[in-house]
Amino acid sequence: MSWQNLRAIKREIRVLGIDDGAFVPHVKGQVLIVGVVFRGGLWFEGVMHTKIAVDGLDSTDKLSSMIVGSSHYPQLRVVVLNGITLGGFNVVDIKTLNSVTELPVITVTRERPDLNEIHKALENLPKSKQRWELILRAGEPVEITSRNQKAKIYVQAAGISLDVAKRILRLTSTRSNVPEALRVAHLIASGISELPPHN
Amino acid sequence: MSWQNLRAIKREIRVLGIDDGAFVPHVKGQVLIVGVVFRGGLWFEGVMHTKIAVDGLDSTDKLSSMIVGSSHYPQLRVVVLNGITLGGFNVVDIKTLNSVTELPVITVTRERPDLNEIHKALENLPKSKQRWELILRAGEPVEITSRNQKAKIYVQAAGISLDVAKRILRLTSTRSNVPEALRVAHLIASGISELPPHN
Repeated sequence: MSWQNLRAIKREIRVLGIDDGAFVPHVKGQVLIVGVVFRGGLWFEGVMHTKIAVDGLDSTDKLSSMIVGSSHYPQLRVVVLNGITLGGFNVVDIKTLNSVTELPVITVTRERPDLNEIHKALENLPKSKQRWELILRAGEPVEITSRNQKAKIYVQAAGISLDVAKRILRLTSTRSNVPEALRVAHLIASGISELPPHN
Repeated sequence: MSWQNLRAIKREIRVLGIDDGAFVPHVKGQVLIVGVVFRGGLWFEGVMHTKIAVDGLDSTDKLSSMIVGSSHYPQLRVVVLNGITLGGFNVVDIKTLNSVTELPVITVTRERPDLNEIHKALENLPKSKQRWELILRAGEPVEITSRNQKAKIYVQAAGISLDVAKRILRLTSTRSNVPEALRVAHLIASGISELPPHN
């Protein structure tokens, strides 16, 4: 994926937004992961899904397989995640996800991730050191202003410069402070997933 | 729902498109039903879901509860179904759906429904007479030209005149011959639902 390509594609760029569905925190189980493909910030192109373990260690593998195995894969130009953790503390290794899929990966959150708090929460989980290293490996989230210049969002990027990442985010955030693919992935994942009974 | 309202709302009209997911035909089971809310033909507003029985008789009840129980209900102005049958031959009573939800209901198919073939298929199912009556009760599908004037689509309507239904369909079919809400509901329902294992 060359930057030239990204410059050329502009408004037509195919973005994959990924978010997780509802789950019961700290309880062993699977959580629905939904990926939504948008063409630029306007057109819904398709959907893909997988499941990962709550607080598990399989998110990078499962996301990679979902993306590379999808019929949309050849069109995709960038992956946008709602933060670096899915399904609780199932940390995504965004550098590995980038190298396996050969697609730039951008994480976006509306609040600055509190690394101290995350570090503390990890202590109660198995392989806390491995999880913490994945978080550090992704690099510190960088504050940028969103498209309307008012709200701030926090961004990490792998396989792409922060400058190009910013331009993609502004181009594709047509309805909110995050790319439309991510906004809609959130709506679908939370709208379709069901909490397990009796919880 | 008055026609005046529909005229006034125009491009901003909230449309609910409903389609079913994958299922194994003729095998007892549940099928995912996805409803997608669009504002006009452009903006994805939200998603709702339910499950119905394959070849069952519960689609009208389940759709009514899903719609009336949704947080989007107060904004909705029209319901668009991908034909009158969901999950095999679980026939939707569109007149009852209209009266319970107090929303106009439009069915859209790209091919003219073959009523003789449907009648024949129904013979193998329990309560075939009841199902057939629901199909007749919906009225004969009317051929109309889609937004680009080339393709034909087939439409039934309850609680709304065919003329107003036509205008809504043309206004909201921004990417294909059917309203964007219905196109996206189809993509989500088929993309998220999984066939039961061993089938």
